[in-house]
Amino acid sequence: MSENGALPLRGKVLTVDTMNPNVKKVDYAVRGPIVQRAVQIEKELKEGVKKPFEEVIKANIGDAHAMGQRPITFFRQVMALCTYPQLLDDNKFPEDAKNRARRILQSCGGNSIGAYTSSQGIDCVRHDVANYIQRRDGGIPSDPDNIYLTTGASDGIVTILKLLTAGEGRTRTGVMISIPQYPLYSASLAELGAVQINYYLNEEKCWSLDISELQRSLQAAREHCNPRVLCIINPGNPTGQVQSRQCIEDVIRFAAKENLFLMADEVYQDNVYAEGCEFHSFKKVLFEMGPEYSSKLELASFHSTSKCYMGECGFRGGYLEVINMDPEVKAQLTKLVSVRLCPPVPGQALMDLVVNSPQPGEPSYQTFIKERTAVLSALAEKAKLTEEILNTVPGISCNPVQGAMYSFPRITLPERAINEAKAKGQAPDMFYCMKLLEETGICLVPGSGFGQREGTYHFRMTILPPTDKLKIMLNKLKEFHQKFTQQYS
Amino acid sequence: MSENGALPLRGKVLTVDTMNPNVKKVDYAVRGPIVQRAVQIEKELKEGVKKPFEEVIKANIGDAHAMGQRPITFFRQVMALCTYPQLLDDNKFPEDAKNRARRILQSCGGNSIGAYTSSQGIDCVRHDVANYIQRRDGGIPSDPDNIYLTTGASDGIVTILKLLTAGEGRTRTGVMISIPQYPLYSASLAELGAVQINYYLNEEKCWSLDISELQRSLQAAREHCNPRVLCIINPGNPTGQVQSRQCIEDVIRFAAKENLFLMADEVYQDNVYAEGCEFHSFKKVLFEMGPEYSSKLELASFHSTSKCYMGECGFRGGYLEVINMDPEVKAQLTKLVSVRLCPPVPGQALMDLVVNSPQPGEPSYQTFIKERTAVLSALAEKAKLTEEILNTVPGISCNPVQGAMYSFPRITLPERAINEAKAKGQAPDMFYCMKLLEETGICLVPGSGFGQREGTYHFRMTILPPTDKLKIMLNKLKEFHQKFTQQYS
Ligand SMILES: Cc1ncc(COP(=O)(O)O)c(C=O)c1O
Ligand SMILES: Cc1ncc(COP(=O)(O)O)c(C=O)c1O
Repeated sequence: MSENGALPLRGKVLTVDTMNPNVKKVDYAVRGPIVQRAVQIEKELKEGVKKPFEEVIKANIGDAHAMGQRPITFFRQVMALCTYPQLLDDNKFPEDAKNRARRILQSCGGNSIGAYTSSQGIDCVRHDVANYIQRRDGGIPSDPDNIYLTTGASDGIVTILKLLTAGEGRTRTGVMISIPQYPLYSASLAELGAVQINYYLNEEKCWSLDISELQRSLQAAREHCNPRVLCIINPGNPTGQVQSRQCIEDVIRFAAKENLFLMADEVYQDNVYAEGCEFHSFKKVLFEMGPEYSSKLELASFHSTSKCYMGECGFRGGYLEVINMDPEVKAQLTKLVSVRLCPPVPGQALMDLVVNSPQPGEPSYQTFIKERTAVLSALAEKAKLTEEILNTVPGISCNPVQGAMYSFPRITLPERAINEAKAKGQAPDMFYCMKLLEETGICLVPGSGFGQREGTYHFRMTILPPTDKLKIMLNKLKEFHQKFTQQYS
Repeated sequence: MSENGALPLRGKVLTVDTMNPNVKKVDYAVRGPIVQRAVQIEKELKEGVKKPFEEVIKANIGDAHAMGQRPITFFRQVMALCTYPQLLDDNKFPEDAKNRARRILQSCGGNSIGAYTSSQGIDCVRHDVANYIQRRDGGIPSDPDNIYLTTGASDGIVTILKLLTAGEGRTRTGVMISIPQYPLYSASLAELGAVQINYYLNEEKCWSLDISELQRSLQAAREHCNPRVLCIINPGNPTGQVQSRQCIEDVIRFAAKENLFLMADEVYQDNVYAEGCEFHSFKKVLFEMGPEYSSKLELASFHSTSKCYMGECGFRGGYLEVINMDPEVKAQLTKLVSVRLCPPVPGQALMDLVVNSPQPGEPSYQTFIKERTAVLSALAEKAKLTEEILNTVPGISCNPVQGAMYSFPRITLPERAINEAKAKGQAPDMFYCMKLLEETGICLVPGSGFGQREGTYHFRMTILPPTDKLKIMLNKLKEFHQKFTQQYS
């Protein structure tokens, strides 16, 4: 201490130099600089700053309600009943909603969604999830003990990656992820210090997955790490492809042969639009391939309340199912999730409604089906619209949006634009997207945030804005692209 | 492959030998073997198995609603309105509840709690939290930019520990935690691979904190790691003590002198019962000590919707406030939390209600105050009752439960019991608690799950059961302890 008793001036305990180095390596483009600037611009607009547009259109994130989609009435009715059970006496609510609410409340401590639940999730919800999977997969059994409810699919994915991360140097766990990828994967791997192994999807073949590319990527990775995990997103984000049954079989065969743990991110399982495309769960295909595979391959699959027709992102509901997981490891998983006590109970309850929706004959059935169909057919229409309009623009080429909620078109950028971006230290597609935002208010995510083949440029755009807004947006984008190309030619 | 095309039998990809070694080291007693056995026993009772008791009393976890506490009406009304906004037209709901709901909905994307929010949490909620802190701390300013909403306090605590973990070997981050501790801390440190540094609370002086013990523990730790963090739980879990203002000042002075980042777990800030005790936030004391400290010391403090008078554990709401955090590190924190998108929105909304509860003159004010007072005075009564009855038992000695929700009495175990436990490979207090569970249905957590001085034994019991049940439980416990002592003497 100095004479007057003041403490000597010392630096901070926690600085970027002394913080967790893995956290520093994390990157998360979906909420990166473009989005931060978009939020700023929104504030400026509110404060009356003049711009060449009146509002920011956020097509950067798969957030259906934020883009105006209405919640499914039945789901919200049951959730309101669970939240404030006095409403159970209200005759404005249908009987099936009340029954669902009573059942959920009965399985909560003190009949309250304010109690902690078992860390793995509410018993009856896990049973309902297992029944749903069994129905979905044509009767292939699902064991509630293999179901873990999660805080959104994000939480489940990170948890399984965490279990799998071990070793040091050349024995460090390597995890194969598709490029382009959903950046949760690269971010989590960076945080965990696991090795990211890239395999490229085939843009020329509608973003499909080639086994030869898996093989190439695995071979290369074996030189420097211990590849143990293969992650698949189907339907794909950001690329919107839907995998064929054949492809899934090939992937399973590959994973079995190469002794890889398979992680199947199936949060878009209801989001399939293109003709001839169908969702096949990895689990179903695995079991249809016979006991040689189904008794052996270790698989974790993930689902969420955030996507599909419900789009309830804010509730952070989700589940994972593990297949063929070593029982001792499962005990470790159960212990690990118990540290955070339990997933949010409203999210658990909502997940229950998704897997146990109104049935024919129940009072809410008609409305439910009407609402669900409306959402899914609007999405199908917008998927088509997006592809069509984008492909009319010279310098933009867009694969069919077969599923999920995104288009990932390739853009041709003039040499001068690329150089100007590089001079600024920016990825060229970031430069493009930033300009687009400033000039039109359209908020997209540059392809570089998801990964892409060297020298190619893309952006990701959700198909979620309401049809009329989407059309306006696509046309503004077309205009911008033409102007941009001219300006830099 | 073998001749008939079958795959060679290979081991699992993921086994306890090849999994994340840090996860293996994690221990979480609050949901450990005792609780697992309790769940089993409940099932057996349901199936009609005869037991010397009719129900399991879970006094193992601070889960108020599960023990029969009713939710605060106003909170649930607003939550129901947010969930199903059609109810805004219903005249059964008071105007102040509707106003709160409208305000929350207006700050959600698409006016839906089903939209993702900003990763740091809803803007207006963070403003309300800052205002609450400012009021609580007698006007000391709080900046909404320093507030992060979290998935329960657990999430916030793990996130800050994660930021702070760095270095290898002797430079590895060391984190000082009290013994006994809330096992989230030891579990998270194990998972992160940080070094746990124990300092012991002084049981003889009502579980108070001695600076000389902090000094001893720090000195010892400096031999083998890089101590950078000091964690304090006030009011204490599992020990129920409330720190004096003087003690907090001393701790702050110590942390400043030793260049430690301070983490203040203040989730029990409304749970103070004993006469002469009062809650002082670390932040308030820090700022009252003058700029010499308040301009320098790095502090993170944590709050939750799970405890206090609301006990809304299932919603997983919480916040953290950072003080004097390096701006670059704050940017890293913001990036890190964005990977999981956002905390559950119902939990965020509930946190808002806690910090922005009904005001005098508003229609819900009277009921709210009545409900809150009822909960807190019942807890105060039960805190006293617990201490009194336990101290009538020879071989049990219990400090006053000044705050939080737990008693942590010391138990004297006969030598023969200790030996029998050790022969079974069990901690002696685990042996005791397991027997108690089997014979009486009372579910407690052994002291060994929280840490205790070598050769001493304790259990943790919540004071949450309704008063009449608590009395029955305490008397059963008394009887058991006497029988147990006799049996093993
Ligand atoms: C492929 C994929 N997986 C997982 C998630 C995580 O979603 P959540 O955590 O909201 O369930 C998303 C969200 O966009 C996604 O696109
Ligand atoms: C001291 C302390 N901190 C943090 C927590 C975590 O609570 P939550 O994650 O429910 O907010 C608890 C829960 O019991 C606790 O006792």
